[in-house]
Amino acid sequence: MPDNRKTGLVLVLGGARSGKSRFSETMLAQSGLDVHYVATAEALDGEMNERIAHHRASRPAQWATHEIPLDLPQALLAIDAPGRGILVDCLTLWITNLMMAGRDIGAAFDALAEACPKLRGRVVFVSNEVGLGIVPEHRMARDFRDHAGRLHQRIAALADEVYFVAAGLPLRMKG
Amino acid sequence: MPDNRKTGLVLVLGGARSGKSRFSETMLAQSGLDVHYVATAEALDGEMNERIAHHRASRPAQWATHEIPLDLPQALLAIDAPGRGILVDCLTLWITNLMMAGRDIGAAFDALAEACPKLRGRVVFVSNEVGLGIVPEHRMARDFRDHAGRLHQRIAALADEVYFVAAGLPLRMKG
Amino acid sequence: MPDNRKTGLVLVLGGARSGKSRFSETMLAQSGLDVHYVATAEALDGEMNERIAHHRASRPAQWATHEIPLDLPQALLAIDAPGRGILVDCLTLWITNLMMAGRDIGAAFDALAEACPKLRGRVVFVSNEVGLGIVPEHRMARDFRDHAGRLHQRIAALADEVYFVAAGLPLRMKG
Repeated sequence: MPDNRKTGLVLVLGGARSGKSRFSETMLAQSGLDVHYVATAEALDGEMNERIAHHRASRPAQWATHEIPLDLPQALLAIDAPGRGILVDCLTLWITNLMMAGRDIGAAFDALAEACPKLRGRVVFVSNEVGLGIVPEHRMARDFRDHAGRLHQRIAALADEVYFVAAGLPLRMKG
Repeated sequence: MPDNRKTGLVLVLGGARSGKSRFSETMLAQSGLDVHYVATAEALDGEMNERIAHHRASRPAQWATHEIPLDLPQALLAIDAPGRGILVDCLTLWITNLMMAGRDIGAAFDALAEACPKLRGRVVFVSNEVGLGIVPEHRMARDFRDHAGRLHQRIAALADEVYFVAAGLPLRMKG
Repeated sequence: MPDNRKTGLVLVLGGARSGKSRFSETMLAQSGLDVHYVATAEALDGEMNERIAHHRASRPAQWATHEIPLDLPQALLAIDAPGRGILVDCLTLWITNLMMAGRDIGAAFDALAEACPKLRGRVVFVSNEVGLGIVPEHRMARDFRDHAGRLHQRIAALADEVYFVAAGLPLRMKG
């Protein structure tokens, strides 16, 4: 069972439709914190619109929503406050957005890693584990999963708790 | 070590060649129950024939075998009895069959979820975890892994025990 | 936390950029053993060269390095000695090399499985878990992940310890 602590950094990893978002939402909904939802998704096509709408319908209506496709470290520092919960869903889409926008991935990861220890609320990062299939054929996909793996390692090293979610069930990896 | 209980619903997840079928077969072989094997596979090509023959050779010869590509909920209710074990291998192939046949996936999942609490024997569902690679390029593959993830969450919520198998080693996620 | 035992067979599974190599290197670096590094990679293109250089830079400089793309069982028996640690990185590249060279996979796996019980030092096998995405489109990729899954099961059955690494965090599956 997840902690309902009021502070700390949490990383929730899982596959597609693993229940990782639901698990993270429930954790924060039960915390009693003032929760802010940070969506990294941009609704660029019909399929993505569907997925976003589906996710939105499952969240408590009173949560403030911020759409932050790129400047996540800065946004977290601006939104964060003691007694506040922040749900970031998800890091893998943030990486995709950075790549599509031609941003410096290393600098963006450094900025996020530097922001993390400054956060005073409870911050839950959701991210897709994408490195457990066969090597992708395209270089961009290989780069993407390398970036994702590296960021997961950095955030996990900073995190107070890390969960791996499969079939809706959390496995505690750290904390 | 797996339980050798006589009742209950079990979900066994794992990757390709993870040993999930072998683990499930051993669990039921050691239960002393009258075991019925429900194969969702249809032998449509040479490669699939090979895989089916390979699996069949590893099972106890006295197990009754049922080939049920589509109407799984109805078949389970018909086969089930107290003191009986049922091994369903596997849910992911069932989903593939439903999609190929143009069946209503939501209705099929509802029917399975409704059948589960009525089962009086020990029922072990084997399924492939398919959501831990990068996003597939084709819409049909994305839909497939969404369906698989959703079904795993539903069955896991109903199950008494859930295992994740890797390299032949079971990790107990629930129960 | 990993053991720093002086003997025994260890299998470390993980996805791409999961931290499995780093975890294995740290385990052996802290063992006090005379460590030999067995690289199965061959630098055939620029991208692979980059990955090899990246890995090499992270290892202690005094470790002897052996490049063994194909004849791994024989090499292990030759390098092994009491008080010695061997890090094999990685089994999945060895399988790829065997397939590309048209070697008999079954015979190679048998040879490795026969070599394992004869090893007197501490031998750590790193390998990629590749079976948790959707079924690959190409037959060769399907064969590859079948081979990998089968080898992981065999080595895991022989191993004293098995770890699954995600986001740099080890999950102990055996031992």
